[in-house]
Amino acid sequence: LHKKKSTVLRNPPPLTTATILSKTYYNVHSHQPESLDWFNVLIAQAIAQFRDDARTDGAILDSLNKVINGPNKPDFLDTIKITEISLGEDFPIFSNCRITPSSEEPGKLQAKMDIDLSDVITLGVETRLLLNYPKPLVAVLPVGLSVSILRFSGTLSISFIPSQENTSNSTTLTFSLLDDYRLELSVRSLVGSRSRLQDVPKIAQLIESRIHAWIDERVVEPKFQQIVLPSLWPRKKTTREHVPDTSTDSDS
Amino acid sequence: LHKKKSTVLRNPPPLTTATILSKTYYNVHSHQPESLDWFNVLIAQAIAQFRDDARTDGAILDSLNKVINGPNKPDFLDTIKITEISLGEDFPIFSNCRITPSSEEPGKLQAKMDIDLSDVITLGVETRLLLNYPKPLVAVLPVGLSVSILRFSGTLSISFIPSQENTSNSTTLTFSLLDDYRLELSVRSLVGSRSRLQDVPKIAQLIESRIHAWIDERVVEPKFQQIVLPSLWPRKKTTREHVPDTSTDSDS
Repeated sequence: LHKKKSTVLRNPPPLTTATILSKTYYNVHSHQPESLDWFNVLIAQAIAQFRDDARTDGAILDSLNKVINGPNKPDFLDTIKITEISLGEDFPIFSNCRITPSSEEPGKLQAKMDIDLSDVITLGVETRLLLNYPKPLVAVLPVGLSVSILRFSGTLSISFIPSQENTSNSTTLTFSLLDDYRLELSVRSLVGSRSRLQDVPKIAQLIESRIHAWIDERVVEPKFQQIVLPSLWPRKKTTREHVPDTSTDSDS
Repeated sequence: LHKKKSTVLRNPPPLTTATILSKTYYNVHSHQPESLDWFNVLIAQAIAQFRDDARTDGAILDSLNKVINGPNKPDFLDTIKITEISLGEDFPIFSNCRITPSSEEPGKLQAKMDIDLSDVITLGVETRLLLNYPKPLVAVLPVGLSVSILRFSGTLSISFIPSQENTSNSTTLTFSLLDDYRLELSVRSLVGSRSRLQDVPKIAQLIESRIHAWIDERVVEPKFQQIVLPSLWPRKKTTREHVPDTSTDSDS
């Protein structure tokens, strides 16, 4: 008894956005924005753990050193030495979450939320500008920079969409920022060895616009990040067990 | 000028749970549970897409066939044929999300939420029981089964913890169910060819307890699932761009 595949897999026709919204009791026009306090706590706990691991581990220093001195480093810069890293003490606050129709993908829904971070996240580097004309190393200019992110605020859009690539049935998380995000930086600079220039405005401007460009090229609408998510299907190999702490008394 | 790694990486001492909660404005004793309606919509959209892809694609039928007839199939069963798959028409509803101290990991926080699903998710199979004693295939008993999940409700705990394995600095998602989850099944059976037994209670019981055991072995406290999450760091290679639809008129 052979059944055609089409009669084995019984599924109704595709759902419209309106049906999805009604089956999840979400009225896009009247639903109040939702808080994400629980999410802020979980994220904060993960970030605190990351900062703590980085402290004891020095691995972050090594990876950052490799990235900074990697193949993209311009020839006119000597080796870049990291003089300071501060990963901050505060946590991003997500809030005001609401479902809206996607402006970019018709017929699709996304979640928009506000994100706000007030902290001091600092990277300090030292290097030397190498002037190689008319002869190699005809002049060498020491430069010290310290860049701090003080405040970030913006609106994040997220959604889950299937992977368009050929890899099986994976779901991806997509996220992007609206272009009205705000980034507050502080750039300190020290140029020269005998006569020094401090906090050169042009350098601060250059750094700020490079950072904005980096963000805009990757994650500001109409661009978005698309990350493949792992399967959440419970498997034996992803099963773990909490082991109760048996060391209550110190008899042994 | 060499600086010790410990003076380059400037981070304050590790945070206590109390500090994390205060910096995210979450009072565990007084905070109202939060709704997850936005999350229900995003999940529903992804599930609807998955069901739609499965409909047009038949790949799910093939994968399921391979899994069911894989190396774990007992020898006393003939090839198992899938006669029916229905992936349902409704969506899980997550609600009532609250942060609580973890009962299993002291000093850690987790988010607990209710999950409820009312749907009809069905798998129907046909096979034959092969009795091979005293001689091969001395008797053969056709069996038809149809198992439907009608209702699932429970409490899910989730958290983000760093990976304990050696793989770099990845974060993992952990989730588990409290042991008071409820699962309502409907099992139909048809045994025999000439004289048939319908809806054998012992078979339904066997199927139900196998399904409960499968769930308990993988995802019910103190067991939990731990899934490695991909990095969300915005990269060039995960950047995509929405292309505006330029086909407005049909002049060309």
